[in-house]
Amino acid sequence: MKKYLAEMIGTMILVLMGCGAAVSLGCDPVNNQAAVVGTAMAFGLSVVAMAYAIGGISGCHINPAISLGVFLSGRMSAKDCLMYVVFQFLGGLIGAALLFLLVPSSDSSFATAGAGLGANGLQDGISVAGGLLAEIIFTCVFVLVVLGATSKTNGATNNFAGLAIGLSLILVHLACIRYTGTSVNPARSFGPAVFAQFAGGPVAALSNLWIFIVGPLVGGALAAVLWRVVEPAEK
Amino acid sequence: MKKYLAEMIGTMILVLMGCGAAVSLGCDPVNNQAAVVGTAMAFGLSVVAMAYAIGGISGCHINPAISLGVFLSGRMSAKDCLMYVVFQFLGGLIGAALLFLLVPSSDSSFATAGAGLGANGLQDGISVAGGLLAEIIFTCVFVLVVLGATSKTNGATNNFAGLAIGLSLILVHLACIRYTGTSVNPARSFGPAVFAQFAGGPVAALSNLWIFIVGPLVGGALAAVLWRVVEPAEK
Amino acid sequence: MKKYLAEMIGTMILVLMGCGAAVSLGCDPVNNQAAVVGTAMAFGLSVVAMAYAIGGISGCHINPAISLGVFLSGRMSAKDCLMYVVFQFLGGLIGAALLFLLVPSSDSSFATAGAGLGANGLQDGISVAGGLLAEIIFTCVFVLVVLGATSKTNGATNNFAGLAIGLSLILVHLACIRYTGTSVNPARSFGPAVFAQFAGGPVAALSNLWIFIVGPLVGGALAAVLWRVVEPAEK
Amino acid sequence: MKKYLAEMIGTMILVLMGCGAAVSLGCDPVNNQAAVVGTAMAFGLSVVAMAYAIGGISGCHINPAISLGVFLSGRMSAKDCLMYVVFQFLGGLIGAALLFLLVPSSDSSFATAGAGLGANGLQDGISVAGGLLAEIIFTCVFVLVVLGATSKTNGATNNFAGLAIGLSLILVHLACIRYTGTSVNPARSFGPAVFAQFAGGPVAALSNLWIFIVGPLVGGALAAVLWRVVEPAEK
Repeated sequence: MKKYLAEMIGTMILVLMGCGAAVSLGCDPVNNQAAVVGTAMAFGLSVVAMAYAIGGISGCHINPAISLGVFLSGRMSAKDCLMYVVFQFLGGLIGAALLFLLVPSSDSSFATAGAGLGANGLQDGISVAGGLLAEIIFTCVFVLVVLGATSKTNGATNNFAGLAIGLSLILVHLACIRYTGTSVNPARSFGPAVFAQFAGGPVAALSNLWIFIVGPLVGGALAAVLWRVVEPAEK
Repeated sequence: MKKYLAEMIGTMILVLMGCGAAVSLGCDPVNNQAAVVGTAMAFGLSVVAMAYAIGGISGCHINPAISLGVFLSGRMSAKDCLMYVVFQFLGGLIGAALLFLLVPSSDSSFATAGAGLGANGLQDGISVAGGLLAEIIFTCVFVLVVLGATSKTNGATNNFAGLAIGLSLILVHLACIRYTGTSVNPARSFGPAVFAQFAGGPVAALSNLWIFIVGPLVGGALAAVLWRVVEPAEK
Repeated sequence: MKKYLAEMIGTMILVLMGCGAAVSLGCDPVNNQAAVVGTAMAFGLSVVAMAYAIGGISGCHINPAISLGVFLSGRMSAKDCLMYVVFQFLGGLIGAALLFLLVPSSDSSFATAGAGLGANGLQDGISVAGGLLAEIIFTCVFVLVVLGATSKTNGATNNFAGLAIGLSLILVHLACIRYTGTSVNPARSFGPAVFAQFAGGPVAALSNLWIFIVGPLVGGALAAVLWRVVEPAEK
Repeated sequence: MKKYLAEMIGTMILVLMGCGAAVSLGCDPVNNQAAVVGTAMAFGLSVVAMAYAIGGISGCHINPAISLGVFLSGRMSAKDCLMYVVFQFLGGLIGAALLFLLVPSSDSSFATAGAGLGANGLQDGISVAGGLLAEIIFTCVFVLVVLGATSKTNGATNNFAGLAIGLSLILVHLACIRYTGTSVNPARSFGPAVFAQFAGGPVAALSNLWIFIVGPLVGGALAAVLWRVVEPAEK
């Protein structure tokens, strides 16, 4: 049970801090690259922080696409995978609720910037197909790093996995924010999409939510296939 | 005694370098996100630097909210906790004094930007309740990372704790600077609030100081409770 | 065979993510330093991610200049070196093809910025000789770090090699983007140069491609010589 | 002899890459904070790169202020200290010469920005006394981190020293660039000051050079004293 709670808390913190930084910095992929860099760092460092805080409890997936990839790689049971995903979605919801509490309504500029609560959406000039493709490709890269860095055959460098995975999430955001704001994690997209409705945000977050569930899950499954191709035999 | 001195020097350096970078970069959460990223990095890297420099002497708390959380988790004595906090406040005062010496008064733009000496304050559109809530929530996240990453059950990844904790302080600043400038550390707020009076700063630093003492302490205590829920049994 | 595939996938991801971030952030070395910092981070973190994901399979060269330097240092066979380089070029081509698929044509500002697909080119005020010199010098620095950090005599710090090498690629980009956009890797330059033709980019990518093949290879060879001078005797 | 050559190469690379990034990014502490962050990263990551590349050969001081602090802490002989410093100055000179070769004169904007070649100088509104004080204080912080992180009593976390020291140099630059451009290293200031004369730079680099020799050496000596106060007894 503790590992499920750890997944819930970890995903809660990922959403609270990652989306929270996006709102605080006024992340804007077209006009403010410093805010994009800061937001990318926030998502990645959330994973680093959680990896070393709760990694020993649950392995720190905090992302259904990772849990799917790990399950398809035969490293976790179907039951655990399902429970992880449920608690990840719960955590994402709580994280978005906390952020909804925090974003002030008194200052109009902040309120507008924060209205979307960091919800994912198709950015300027990106089609549904383009957004879906971006989520599939970038999630595949991310989950491939997860599967590789935590592989049993890595031996002594395994302690670096949390750091490498978190830094690769910074990387994924630097490339992907311009397309969709970067989900690569259905649980991260779910909570803000729900609460963005109450915040009066202009982003059509709920109607596009399927992109950020289907895309990352397909990407995670692809990564499991790709990893099987290059995975070395266990020593 | 050496561990108390180490806490004093560590907190001194945290305030000198973190607040010093905020002043040097002209940190402005609404209009200059590059300065926010740089300031966030400065606070977090101060902790990384101190963790590997004095971690072996005192454990490198350099933050009363952390010492409270560690004490409530049963990992340190009440006497040590009290002494740590006293020396942390002393260190924060000395760090702010050094920064007060450094900030030049000859150049008006720097003098104005530096007038607050990095003192914490409620930013545009943030109410007292909003600032207090932000400090509670973000300190809770930060101290949770500290308690998790330094947990005895983490084994081999424990050497990464200093890095993970420092990087998570970067994270906390990226999300929280927009609300209060980010305290999450009463000793970090105390020194600059005192010396900002002499520097003629416009920030009502002393009258709001209670927010940055109460908020982080409540957050640190909450983290101790939360960690107890998910903490694995000792192996 | 698995190690060759790993090199292909690693180089593919380096090009997809590094060049992808350059396009997404609208990297402009003269007018947008935040985008330069973000792009530099993307290239370096791609190497960190791959080092801990596939390092155990192929050693993660993902760069012909590194493979050349490693071969000249007597650490790999001629056949492996040749095969690595072939698969690295293949990977770079696939990575650029994926990026070509991703960059949308509907939004004109993105399409223009992305037209070069991150292809290398001589920046404002840089001559052919200047660009070649920059590629030689900066590749030499980069490959020297690779040879040093992975040296057998480094013992316990060897696990840090992937991190140190990736961070040094960030460093190389911070200094070199202003000259050539930074290749230091023939396979990274090849793919985007080919696909930039189809994307209608204004950069004369193919006609200058030789600079980004000759420069890095000369730099990598120089690094092998330089390392031999300072290399300690094996313990 | 190899350790002296390693110090020369390391200092050469520090100057080439750190000052090189400052020139490439057009580092301007008052108007361009993104360039400041990028420059700070370049200096710090140069140290990370060199620490893991040549750390096993010479210990990677690449800074006379560090060699002085290490000597005063009784960890190296007077002869080695002297030789290290000589080769560090040589390396700094070569690094600046390479940068002088690289900076193009054809593009006027780059040539002007690069005219100083990253030479240190008193920034807007900073007096000689203020610059000297900044160099003393910030070098003291930096060398204290070096002495602490490499202390024999740190045991298992010692492999992190190179990373912690490099990241703390990022920190020092974030706070100190606004005062003097940040030396904290006489050898880093020497080379660019010499070559800035040939580049027609407006900075009075040579006449102020004594500040960047005296300041860092006093700071390094202070750090040795301070570390002796808190240093734990050897286990």
